[in-house]
Amino acid sequence: MPLPEGDWVGLDLGGTFLKGGRVSAEGRILERLHEPIAGGSAEALLNQLAAAVASLGGRRAGRNIGLGLPGIVDRRSGCVRNAPGVPALNGVSVADELGRRTGLRVRLENDANAAGLAEAWVGSGRDVDGMLFVTLGTGIGAGLVLGGRVWAGHSGYAGELGHVQVEPDGEPCGCGSRGCLETVAGARGWRRRAEQLLSRTPSLLAGRPLEPKTIVEAARAGDALALDVVNGAARALGVGLAAALDLLNLECVVIGGGVSAAGPFLLDRIVEETRCRTFPQVFADCSFRLAALGNDAGVLGAARVAMLAERDDPPAS
Amino acid sequence: MPLPEGDWVGLDLGGTFLKGGRVSAEGRILERLHEPIAGGSAEALLNQLAAAVASLGGRRAGRNIGLGLPGIVDRRSGCVRNAPGVPALNGVSVADELGRRTGLRVRLENDANAAGLAEAWVGSGRDVDGMLFVTLGTGIGAGLVLGGRVWAGHSGYAGELGHVQVEPDGEPCGCGSRGCLETVAGARGWRRRAEQLLSRTPSLLAGRPLEPKTIVEAARAGDALALDVVNGAARALGVGLAAALDLLNLECVVIGGGVSAAGPFLLDRIVEETRCRTFPQVFADCSFRLAALGNDAGVLGAARVAMLAERDDPPAS
Repeated sequence: MPLPEGDWVGLDLGGTFLKGGRVSAEGRILERLHEPIAGGSAEALLNQLAAAVASLGGRRAGRNIGLGLPGIVDRRSGCVRNAPGVPALNGVSVADELGRRTGLRVRLENDANAAGLAEAWVGSGRDVDGMLFVTLGTGIGAGLVLGGRVWAGHSGYAGELGHVQVEPDGEPCGCGSRGCLETVAGARGWRRRAEQLLSRTPSLLAGRPLEPKTIVEAARAGDALALDVVNGAARALGVGLAAALDLLNLECVVIGGGVSAAGPFLLDRIVEETRCRTFPQVFADCSFRLAALGNDAGVLGAARVAMLAERDDPPAS
Repeated sequence: MPLPEGDWVGLDLGGTFLKGGRVSAEGRILERLHEPIAGGSAEALLNQLAAAVASLGGRRAGRNIGLGLPGIVDRRSGCVRNAPGVPALNGVSVADELGRRTGLRVRLENDANAAGLAEAWVGSGRDVDGMLFVTLGTGIGAGLVLGGRVWAGHSGYAGELGHVQVEPDGEPCGCGSRGCLETVAGARGWRRRAEQLLSRTPSLLAGRPLEPKTIVEAARAGDALALDVVNGAARALGVGLAAALDLLNLECVVIGGGVSAAGPFLLDRIVEETRCRTFPQVFADCSFRLAALGNDAGVLGAARVAMLAERDDPPAS
């Protein structure tokens, strides 16, 4: 089926900023918006979103608009859940409420899923059929794109790579389990491990902020303790990614997020820890790439969500 | 798009028997075939398959026929690989060769994927959108059905649940990794563990065949050693299934294969070991069911493959 023509509005709501764009059918951002989010009530936030749609020319851009946000989207109810970054929207029927304000159909997507969809559309995964997008930052997010579409799962929780158990007897996780990938390879996991080791080992890291960036720098400079922390995070990521690959035989893993700025020093270790745990042909099928779209991924992915929704359900002519 | 009408031929080739059926559009087997496989060459086997298609009225049943087999199907080349059960077909372009003999389009599918597709069509997973089918037997096979379609991955290896690493320092596996699920919860894993424990612990199992069935019986009768083996297998399966659920937020896990005959005694343990490692909402979304279609799953799944192929690419009218 041909893709509909015209431009598409995509919004990317974060905990601090709202980004938006009018996006061409080829995936170029033609017009941008970037503003601090309105604090307080859901009402204020929804009004801000509606104003953003209007300023981006929402009505010219198809009947569907896309909105990515840091929470779980329940596709059946149109509600947002588990959204600590935008707590005012927890439990709110954002699609209905914003639809009412704009007269358009609002399609929601989890932000990691939206970013993954963008990478699969015009980014590092644009030539592949099955892709996992992973964001390494404070937490570990992931989005699965299969056959050009987000696979969000039954209630929007697919891609919970951060909660795959990688250490059976590991640290308790906020989710109720223990040894989840995020407890080791999320920013707090790096810090915890560094603190544990610092109590008994000298290191360049003594007295410094125990953030992934600093730790990678120290490891690069030859610090044994820092290298131990980096290797532990890479190993945990390898366990999780190997499970994903053995289950899904993906063509591509795209890695983004702040921590991915550590580049090959970290990436090469993650790839090797994945390799030694993955069925050989499955590993051979997969390429590991850094994300290409940076901060634009969320807006592009949200616009792509709108575009695909229009294709699935075209206006009666 | 409406499903095409008429009957469909599905073949299920195993290491010992060829099963086949003419299957109605509603998933009933209208006519059956069950015969020992022709030994020897690929030629003999392909001729037997062609004869089976003719006897099932292949030409009346659409332009597509489906064939499930115990190997990896490379969708791009139409070749069969990693098929120790039917070694004569390794590397053979089975789809082309059988197509030439029958004048029909032959669609191949891995046998676990075909069985999963059947369960998602008219079996235990028929009301769900995302499902993992797991066969517990000598090995551990799995098939992933997402949105009513098999997700086979880039080169047909998706669903390699048996090679998800569940014990980082576990036994070496034939695939080159170590601690794969199959090394613990495949039939040889049960035996190895029982043998290890028998060397130092008295048990009802002494002198008995160390097969999953016998071990489950002894565990049921209160034998501590046997219970230890059962719990170890359940735990390993829980680690693998929890990873699959956290990644895919599936509605359903369907468990089949000979070992699943152990029923709730084993199944309840697997479910509990999965629960304690899975994100709570993701676990709540998933139901665990025993397979419903038994030995018919392969034939039904192969017929469904043919039916879906006909829908995707209907004859020009």
